[in-house]
Amino acid sequence: MNDLEATALRYRDGELYVLDQRLLPGEERWLHCTGTAQLVELIRGLAIRGAPLIGIAAALWVGHSALQGEDHDELTRTIGELRKARPTAVNLTHYLDRLQHAVDNGQSAAKIGAVAVDVFEQDVALCAAMSNHGAALLQAGDNILTHCNTGSLATAGAGTAVGVIMQAHRLGKNIHVWVDETRPLLQGARLTTWELQRAGIPHTLICDGMAAGLMAVGRVDRVVVGADRIARNGDFANKIGTFMLAVLAHHHQVPFYVVAPRTTVDTACPDGGSIPIEQRDPEEVRGVIGSYGTCLWSPPNVPVYNPAFDITPAELVTGWVLDSGVYTGSQVRDGALTGRCRNC
Amino acid sequence: MNDLEATALRYRDGELYVLDQRLLPGEERWLHCTGTAQLVELIRGLAIRGAPLIGIAAALWVGHSALQGEDHDELTRTIGELRKARPTAVNLTHYLDRLQHAVDNGQSAAKIGAVAVDVFEQDVALCAAMSNHGAALLQAGDNILTHCNTGSLATAGAGTAVGVIMQAHRLGKNIHVWVDETRPLLQGARLTTWELQRAGIPHTLICDGMAAGLMAVGRVDRVVVGADRIARNGDFANKIGTFMLAVLAHHHQVPFYVVAPRTTVDTACPDGGSIPIEQRDPEEVRGVIGSYGTCLWSPPNVPVYNPAFDITPAELVTGWVLDSGVYTGSQVRDGALTGRCRNC
Repeated sequence: MNDLEATALRYRDGELYVLDQRLLPGEERWLHCTGTAQLVELIRGLAIRGAPLIGIAAALWVGHSALQGEDHDELTRTIGELRKARPTAVNLTHYLDRLQHAVDNGQSAAKIGAVAVDVFEQDVALCAAMSNHGAALLQAGDNILTHCNTGSLATAGAGTAVGVIMQAHRLGKNIHVWVDETRPLLQGARLTTWELQRAGIPHTLICDGMAAGLMAVGRVDRVVVGADRIARNGDFANKIGTFMLAVLAHHHQVPFYVVAPRTTVDTACPDGGSIPIEQRDPEEVRGVIGSYGTCLWSPPNVPVYNPAFDITPAELVTGWVLDSGVYTGSQVRDGALTGRCRNC
Repeated sequence: MNDLEATALRYRDGELYVLDQRLLPGEERWLHCTGTAQLVELIRGLAIRGAPLIGIAAALWVGHSALQGEDHDELTRTIGELRKARPTAVNLTHYLDRLQHAVDNGQSAAKIGAVAVDVFEQDVALCAAMSNHGAALLQAGDNILTHCNTGSLATAGAGTAVGVIMQAHRLGKNIHVWVDETRPLLQGARLTTWELQRAGIPHTLICDGMAAGLMAVGRVDRVVVGADRIARNGDFANKIGTFMLAVLAHHHQVPFYVVAPRTTVDTACPDGGSIPIEQRDPEEVRGVIGSYGTCLWSPPNVPVYNPAFDITPAELVTGWVLDSGVYTGSQVRDGALTGRCRNC
């Protein structure tokens, strides 16, 4: 496989490296991936995160493993282990399906590696397409609210929702971004601020409970978020707190867009109720644990509910920004996400 | 003044003590109040917090100062300094108005002290009345969502919203409480959990962005919150994140109650737009700072928006639970909060 370089993923001289996102924004440290179990742990522990990036890292590892001489059974086992790393994001499943297909067809190691490289390069192209479609929806001077992190740290390319914001900024649209901190794991406060700062895009950090008050006084023009899985009826799973924003946007008549590549659509999934939601460690809510330090502020052992994602129903979405274009609710009801829409 | 004892406030042998709420739940440390400037700093720094309690502590300090021999001008200066401690909660203003009135009328130090004691004892009675009215609204087996801290740490008595929950629990209603952590200052995670644990009431801690998903699947039967100031049209200011809950409850047809003593109603304030909203230190949002430790997880100097409160409009409120009873929207429109309602 040729050398590949993304903000948080690197294939160089035949070795896979990932940027340890747990250490951002304080430190930029690259980790050398040397085993499947290690990679699974890095994904579970959120060193590698973002629905597309998880899938791309896994795909590159399978390509790398083929080139290291793993045979059909070994590669199938490797793919099986990677599949179980996290349950909600569907890109991982899609990309590993492609690799397993190449393995099952008895492709050469070089061909399997080429599929992995194609997964990476396709994501870059998908991001560029989404960014262009989405940026056209933003108006000059818009205040955009976003949640979690959906930029170049989460993909091989420019990102999903943040990719749209970056492109609008490049087009000179004079965008300002409200960044939800995104409790419990603070991807907005840690990662999106870091990305926007590097890109020179004006932004302001808020706590998740502050978005409503901003909308009430007309200080949010649009909400733009990513997705971990989109069902074929348009319902989607994304970072916990997204559904809250959709309800608030609906109440205040603020347009609400979800931005994702077609690899995030699960056509086998009829609706949001069928998307598995990962429950995570109570310690994440009892305090914070990270490279910035550890604080426990709650009574020890307080009972906690900690779903990583929530479901936003299609009726609250103004538009689905995919690489193939922007779709409305009626187009989604007509089958736009299944590729069977006659008017799309 | 005779000895007085509340969960977070104590007058004993002629000295005022406050429980340092910054150290909870890790440590229970009482601070001896020895000066007006010190008390103002304790209020600003949230060692003493909760709209009623701030006012009661200030009132007791004025009574104490009178007994220490402060004359009319000195007491007026003391009251003036205390008034500026925090701008949003109106109980502080109401209670200090009572003390200033006694001072202006040339009352004896003993009489001024008696007014302060009455402020304390009245709050205990108001809490008991609210708790009874509110508990009657809760059904057996209810899952109640609450925000911030509104229990006995915030008042001289049983509390406002948490007082209602405590009373329902005492009545054997088998209540379970969802506790919003309440970023940025985590009063829910630190204080409400501590109070509910001491009372043996089942509860589960969540991040503020998780309430919406719980409502979507029918796991929240009622939302009960406190208030820092209620305008005469029923709009009210409360801890940032409250308005979000009101919108979510409205969307999901979940009853939403605000619980406050009559001393929280500002009849001079026509509507929510007239309530001053305190902006606080950006560092509170860039990380956490507390007795549990200090973590900065955002890029240093990231721009921050940090209002301490937001405004919930009257049309999203199912009922106003005051010490005098429970009022509906139409009663509030008829003047229930101004004491001029013919049907209340």
